[in-house]
Amino acid sequence: MQASGAVPGWPRTRGSFAEDPPCPPGANGPGEREGASTAPPRDLGGGSFPGAEPRPRAGQGGSMLSRVRSAVAHLVSSGGAPPPGPKSPDLTNATSALPTVPPEVPRSPSARTGSGSAVPPKTAEARASFSRPTFLQLSPGGLRRADDHAGRAVQSPPDTGRRLPWSTGYAEVINAGKSRHNEDQACCEVVYVEGRRSVSGVPREPSRSQGLCFYYWGLFDGHAGGGAAEMASRLLHFHIREQLKDLVEILQDPSPPPLCLPSTPGAPGSSDPSHLVGPQSCWSSQKEVTHESLVVGAIENAFHLMDEQMARERRGHHVEGGCCALVVVYLLGKVYVANAGDSRAIIVRNGEIIPMSREFTPETERQRLQQLGFLKPELLGGEFTHLEFPRRVQPKELGQRMLYRDQNMTGWAYKKIELEDLRFPLVCGEGKKARVMATIGVTRGLGDHNLKVCSSTLPIKPFLSCFPEVRVYDLTQYEHCPDDVLVLGTDGLWDVTSDSEVAATVDRVLSGYEPNDPSRYTALAQALVLGARGTPRDRGWRLPNNKLGSGDDISVFIIPLGGPGSYS
Amino acid sequence: MQASGAVPGWPRTRGSFAEDPPCPPGANGPGEREGASTAPPRDLGGGSFPGAEPRPRAGQGGSMLSRVRSAVAHLVSSGGAPPPGPKSPDLTNATSALPTVPPEVPRSPSARTGSGSAVPPKTAEARASFSRPTFLQLSPGGLRRADDHAGRAVQSPPDTGRRLPWSTGYAEVINAGKSRHNEDQACCEVVYVEGRRSVSGVPREPSRSQGLCFYYWGLFDGHAGGGAAEMASRLLHFHIREQLKDLVEILQDPSPPPLCLPSTPGAPGSSDPSHLVGPQSCWSSQKEVTHESLVVGAIENAFHLMDEQMARERRGHHVEGGCCALVVVYLLGKVYVANAGDSRAIIVRNGEIIPMSREFTPETERQRLQQLGFLKPELLGGEFTHLEFPRRVQPKELGQRMLYRDQNMTGWAYKKIELEDLRFPLVCGEGKKARVMATIGVTRGLGDHNLKVCSSTLPIKPFLSCFPEVRVYDLTQYEHCPDDVLVLGTDGLWDVTSDSEVAATVDRVLSGYEPNDPSRYTALAQALVLGARGTPRDRGWRLPNNKLGSGDDISVFIIPLGGPGSYS
Repeated sequence: MQASGAVPGWPRTRGSFAEDPPCPPGANGPGEREGASTAPPRDLGGGSFPGAEPRPRAGQGGSMLSRVRSAVAHLVSSGGAPPPGPKSPDLTNATSALPTVPPEVPRSPSARTGSGSAVPPKTAEARASFSRPTFLQLSPGGLRRADDHAGRAVQSPPDTGRRLPWSTGYAEVINAGKSRHNEDQACCEVVYVEGRRSVSGVPREPSRSQGLCFYYWGLFDGHAGGGAAEMASRLLHFHIREQLKDLVEILQDPSPPPLCLPSTPGAPGSSDPSHLVGPQSCWSSQKEVTHESLVVGAIENAFHLMDEQMARERRGHHVEGGCCALVVVYLLGKVYVANAGDSRAIIVRNGEIIPMSREFTPETERQRLQQLGFLKPELLGGEFTHLEFPRRVQPKELGQRMLYRDQNMTGWAYKKIELEDLRFPLVCGEGKKARVMATIGVTRGLGDHNLKVCSSTLPIKPFLSCFPEVRVYDLTQYEHCPDDVLVLGTDGLWDVTSDSEVAATVDRVLSGYEPNDPSRYTALAQALVLGARGTPRDRGWRLPNNKLGSGDDISVFIIPLGGPGSYS
Repeated sequence: MQASGAVPGWPRTRGSFAEDPPCPPGANGPGEREGASTAPPRDLGGGSFPGAEPRPRAGQGGSMLSRVRSAVAHLVSSGGAPPPGPKSPDLTNATSALPTVPPEVPRSPSARTGSGSAVPPKTAEARASFSRPTFLQLSPGGLRRADDHAGRAVQSPPDTGRRLPWSTGYAEVINAGKSRHNEDQACCEVVYVEGRRSVSGVPREPSRSQGLCFYYWGLFDGHAGGGAAEMASRLLHFHIREQLKDLVEILQDPSPPPLCLPSTPGAPGSSDPSHLVGPQSCWSSQKEVTHESLVVGAIENAFHLMDEQMARERRGHHVEGGCCALVVVYLLGKVYVANAGDSRAIIVRNGEIIPMSREFTPETERQRLQQLGFLKPELLGGEFTHLEFPRRVQPKELGQRMLYRDQNMTGWAYKKIELEDLRFPLVCGEGKKARVMATIGVTRGLGDHNLKVCSSTLPIKPFLSCFPEVRVYDLTQYEHCPDDVLVLGTDGLWDVTSDSEVAATVDRVLSGYEPNDPSRYTALAQALVLGARGTPRDRGWRLPNNKLGSGDDISVFIIPLGGPGSYS
């Protein structure tokens, strides 16, 4: 990898974290992206939408105390939110492991009695530092409204001034009291990548020295604190840029990528891959590597380096918790969708649904987790078993035979219960209640380096992977109409909305607007968020069918794949 | 698990292996299946097709010497076989690791010069023990013809007497010289499962004491010797029967399976799952386990126990090599397709293709293998790297940057080459030439317990998994016509035939027969085998389009899903 120092750093002091703009004073021009403290990008696409200024923030930063309180607020807020899909450490099963709740934490009477909407405590202390995406252009008053769990006003970029690239639509809403602030974050950027000088050793042709531009959208769903999601939303695209720098020339050269590059850029002739294939090669042929797979590898490694940066800087900057990350990169005609967590992306094209991601949960990744626990039993600390049982084994059942699954099985079989089967299972629960080590409900994402199993010192992290699955969609292979969109949503949307319901809403909303009306995509995003949130009624947020709406944070991007917000 | 002693054993002495019937004299009645040395099944479906007698055999059994010779025969036979898809240890990359070829092993001149069909040596010594499926009812002369690499006559059950269950079609042909004998094996059985007495503790109702019957088809593609494939073809269904014994009552009871069974069969009341759910249960609810998933678990564990039996008995009985296993179980209205290796099953239904398996190769399982090598580096013995490179790294490239992938990546990225990257990669090569540790081309199957990395003592086995992937097809959910079939084939078929070509042949052949003509399915199997083998022409076996046919063993089952060979 290249020196990660080239990626803008997280602000260096706690004070600046909460109050200062993230970039050194004077380092950023007016058109520059937030956080870009080094190597200012050229103004390609720069300033194409408002929001390059530092994010609006309020209050003081989080702490372990506030993290505990946030979890407590979640516990005490029963008000109408559906059975919350907590991805944060599961307190319902492990309250005994929590420090005693400080007596000064106020509890919401309405929440405790279960009547009315859930309003968590909002003391001055409780208003810890929080921020919303800069492209929302929130005033201090708007920021307060966005942070209001009772009103749950839907937020979108203003319909004035410059739009998001591609006329992207966006809407979000805060949770119903699950956590103190909205722990979702979002980012939408146009990023210029200047190539490293003559990576391949061949003197550049003038036409190739232009660098590359990629479009970028990211949704980050935080848990156990908002720090990781905010850090990722501000920095991940720079990690991607950094990984792409070596590829600028290669991606613009139609010939196959060189398999090997010289150690010293500029050494002549090394870009010719053929001379590197000696007759002593062990394979009869070399593997073909596509340009596309280089971009996939760049995104994968960017996630890894982002995660490593969080590990390095978490102590100094209180990067609490972790986050799911769903990211879209558009580069050279192709859309790359990278997902780590339980957000989801689908394309709706001519009414047809094309899944562009899958969710990573203790259920979908059970066998990977069990395999890791089986091969590295020390990670289970003698407290957990890598076997899965359909319910907790009781001590009195020793010697009886119970259904189980191991890392190799998808079916179930009976086994005689032995003493070590009484340990808590590595993976347990179902659906939104599934957990790894009784603690966390997602299995991929960024951060979580501090996360420990409740009432123990066992780290969870080895079971959580920071690597995304990347799917590629070639935009040039299909003629897209203005109603074809890529929908990104955090689980707040998908917990209560099916793919086909989203597709129906796409059709219904977009058909109410002229095809060339650029506001139609934000209207669609708002309709989806509203449809998932519902309206306050009968002690909760309810959908028209009277089912509970989502009490989670909900964030939605609508990326048009053709039409007026056309892309170069 | 239950005592595996209830599964018929492999013959106990070397002598009987080659010459004796596999069952103790007098132990088997006329209607009994081969190898069923204990617990004779009731005659449900027994004798429904001929072939219950011991398989026809010839010559002497294999040895390490014959194994090496077999590999050599493979090497010297270039005659027209397509680039062979050797799943046996790869000698092309590692001939130095082989013992010196004994000078007395004759080589086929025609094979060496590449003219004519490949005929491996057939000295008396070379005619090692081999057998073909009993249902082929081969006479000694027929057995010789079936073993003739030059003629490559297609073998099918005779069109007289009783048919295979469901009027199943079958055809096979020996390879073009790749190994001394046909290393594919096949099995088709109706198996009766007598339940263990009152497993759930509830006294049986009379209607439930009937036991269960399952239909069974298996294809076993051996490598590095025929022993494992033959053993699996004779015993795997008994392991499945053994695993199902506990489930006989449960599967016939429409209520959900009990999660826990008493240790002592007969303890009253224990079959009631509700009393086992204590209020102290850690989960709010118990996981629902379906009958279907119990059958899947039974098949998975049967594969595992079969593999363990091979490990135990390999020394005494010269169970050379390993085998891919593709198995179909029909039970209570559902078809279970279990695959471990690179054979393939597809359903052709009304012209539509439904894949019922996927292949397990170093390419498709790269990340699982790399993850194992990464977590357990001792398995690589300091000789291999878990990283993948698109070609072998050269010592002179130290310090340069080369493309690589690790266990977390699907894309490629550049890394600086360090000393340990010069080790041989755990996974290398492409397509049929892909290998694990330069040795084996499949990553799942049975056996291979003796297999070592060439020129080392490193065992391959930990990287090879014996667990199948099981897919389920509910036969009751669709009205099937006589032209709807499940096609099973070893890679000899699929290497040169696409799914859609198979579907076209299904349509072409079956439409030439009356729907109620039971011989149409064997005619279809023969057509597929002939179409993959081709005809001898221009120094090899060639297809009508002049491409090379498959030089591998080819075996095909055609299982009708509706029509005259109806099932109960």
